Parts: sequence; C-alpha cells; structure tokens
Amino acid sequence: MEHHWDAKRLTELPGRYRATLINKVAGYKTAHLLGTKAADGSENLALFNSVVHIGANPPYLGFILRPTTVARHTYDNIMATGVYTLNAVSAPYHKNAHCTSGKFPKGVSEFGACGFSPVYREGFAAPFVAESRVQFGLTFVEEHLLCNDTRLVVGRVEHLFVPEAALGPDGDVDLEVLESVAIGGLDSYYTGTKLGRYGYYRPGEALEELP
Amino acid sequence: MEHHWDAKRLTELPGRYRATLINKVAGYKTAHLLGTKAADGSENLALFNSVVHIGANPPYLGFILRPTTVARHTYDNIMATGVYTLNAVSAPYHKNAHCTSGKFPKGVSEFGACGFSPVYREGFAAPFVAESRVQFGLTFVEEHLLCNDTRLVVGRVEHLFVPEAALGPDGDVDLEVLESVAIGGLDSYYTGTKLGRYGYYRPGEALEELP
Repeated sequence: MEHHWDAKRLTELPGRYRATLINKVAGYKTAHLLGTKAADGSENLALFNSVVHIGANPPYLGFILRPTTVARHTYDNIMATGVYTLNAVSAPYHKNAHCTSGKFPKGVSEFGACGFSPVYREGFAAPFVAESRVQFGLTFVEEHLLCNDTRLVVGRVEHLFVPEAALGPDGDVDLEVLESVAIGGLDSYYTGTKLGRYGYYRPGEALEELP
Repeated sequence: MEHHWDAKRLTELPGRYRATLINKVAGYKTAHLLGTKAADGSENLALFNSVVHIGANPPYLGFILRPTTVARHTYDNIMATGVYTLNAVSAPYHKNAHCTSGKFPKGVSEFGACGFSPVYREGFAAPFVAESRVQFGLTFVEEHLLCNDTRLVVGRVEHLFVPEAALGPDGDVDLEVLESVAIGGLDSYYTGTKLGRYGYYRPGEALEELP
C-alpha cells in the first residue's frame, strides 16, 4: 500500500507531522557542525543538514539557513566576521552534535556544553571542531534570499583538513574510514555502507566498478 | 597523519583530483532521479545528489544545477513545462541510476536505456519513476544564479507518494525500509544503518531516544 498526498492534503496535515515527514522523506543528508566566532569573541556551534556542493574550482559549498532557526547567531557571526567552519560529524560524536540544537543560556557556548573543543588553525579566525576529522574553513561569498525567507549561503573553501588514512590516490575519500554520519530529517543519524563506486558510464559498454 | 590544503594548494591540484576530493569530502548526499518531459513529448531522466530541504509549509525542495551538466535538458524542460519529478534512488536500482549520467544518442530516453519506467499519475504532466518508492511531483517556483554560474532551482511539492510500510505514526519515514541510497561524490553509493533517533535536546535533561 502507498500513501499519496497532494498539495492541499499536505497543507492540511498537522504541522509537526508535516515537518517530520517532509524533512525525512527526502533521504540521507550531510551532517556538519558550523563554527563561528562573534565580534565579542564568543564561540558558536550549530548543526546543519543542508550542506551542498556548489563547485570544485574554486571549491564552493552552500548551506540553507532557516529564518527562525535557533542557529541565528550563525548568520550574524558570518556577516560580522566573513568566515566560518564546517566540520564533519562522525559516529562517535553524533549525540553530541545533536545536542548543539538545544537552546542554551546566553553566554554558554555549544562547544563546551556539548563536549566539543574549539581549535584555531593556520591563522583562520573561525573555530574548527577538534573532534571532527574533516574540517573546512570558508569565507562568505554570497547569500540568496529564497521564496520562504530561508537563505542559501555560499562560501569558498580556504582550508581543508582530511586524515591521510581516508584519502585515495585519485582524490577519493573513504567516508566509512572517517565514520562520517548522514542525517535523516532533523533527528536521525546513520552510518553508511558502500554498495559500490563506478566509472563514468558509456552507453554500450559495461559499467566499470572502481576500487 | 592529516592532509591540509589551503586555497592556493587547492587551486594547484589536478582538476580531476580536486573534483573527486571536493565532491566526496563533504559527506553523504541525497540521491534522486529527476524526471521531465520536453515540449515535443520526449522524456528525460537525470541523477542529482544535491536535493536540499527548503521548507515544510508549504513543502519546498531545492537542487543545484551545474552550468555544463549533461542534464542540461533537465533545465530546459523545467523552464518549458514548469513541472518535474524527484524520485528516490533505492539500493536495487543504484547501478541503473548511475547509468543515467551517461551521454545517450539524441532521441534516446534515459528511462528506457537505463531500465526505468515512466509513469504518469494524478494528471501530473511530468513522468515519475515507477521503480522509485518515494516520488515527488513539483512545480517550479524560482531559480537563483550563483557565483560560479550554477543555479539553485526551487520547487513546491504538489504530490508525494510514500509506501505505507515506511511511514511512522508521527510522520517519520524509515529510510532503511525504503532501501534509500546516499551518494558520495559523483560515483559512490551507500545504504544507511541507523545509529539513533533523538528528541529535541533540553540542556540539563537527558537526551531522549525516539523509536
């Protein structure tokens, strides 16, 4: 049996049911902790499941910022300083990462409250997450205001740190070695198991499996 | 040992190495087949790993379209018809999905060439993928041209089909039951294993695990 909703029935759903459904049904998403520093020196850390690849040359990443998010500090800090970090969530820290979405008292940093350590590297002004195995340092490039008042924020990669153990000879990265986590909806966390890696498909030829 | 690239060293990398690295290192991404129909009636199917949640009320999804993609037909068809479908890739069909990225002769649809069946439902003008367990029908809402000539395309969900077997009482969706697939980079496919699902975290309270 299959369930069908049209636009009208989606609108009539209870808000919480609809939010859970729509967030989850789109599948596995990226999981990153976004680190910023305010003008007053306080450090902020927020969980995002919306990082997307924008380009490789130069390397650009984007993420979606909701209008009423608890991570509003994130936006203010990026605008004030022009820099931020994206840090991959790994399995051993997925519960800690989830906790960063809580509402903490003013003056309390999600870093300390959730068991993460801010680290400053290569003179970059935003804090990286020491516990993350993949760390990006980015400079703000542009923002786009979308139809429902969310924003797409685009940044250029200024620094990238990756463990050698996860790097293949061709630039491939082993997400299983990294114990990288995927997010489902706003509340579920997954590890991945590789089905396969394949070469570019040429019609009429066999699909090539890559190591 | 850890590898570090700054912006200059990233620029100096061989193009293919950099593309593989930057695409893969950002982690697990959504996997969808995007179905469109041209004004002349021909059907097009293209694989995307960049679907992001934009909003739940009303439900909006976005995706990133590259300037030089082989799936350029996708853009032309969406602009001409105003509608498209997003269809989840499941494990049994991940190789078929990968093959849609190949360059096919003019007049050959990726549907038939890659073993997928177009299906028209509820009077919606764009073809759904019969083999996909989660199917979205969307109308084009807006596009945003980004700094590197990629585009963010935003659509509103007009139809959503989900198997009852994967639906929880609160709108939760079981991605493992769906055998949903995540993509790593442009070439790797993964299934997910749930680590946990958690309630909203309130500082000072224990983290609640959800079923």
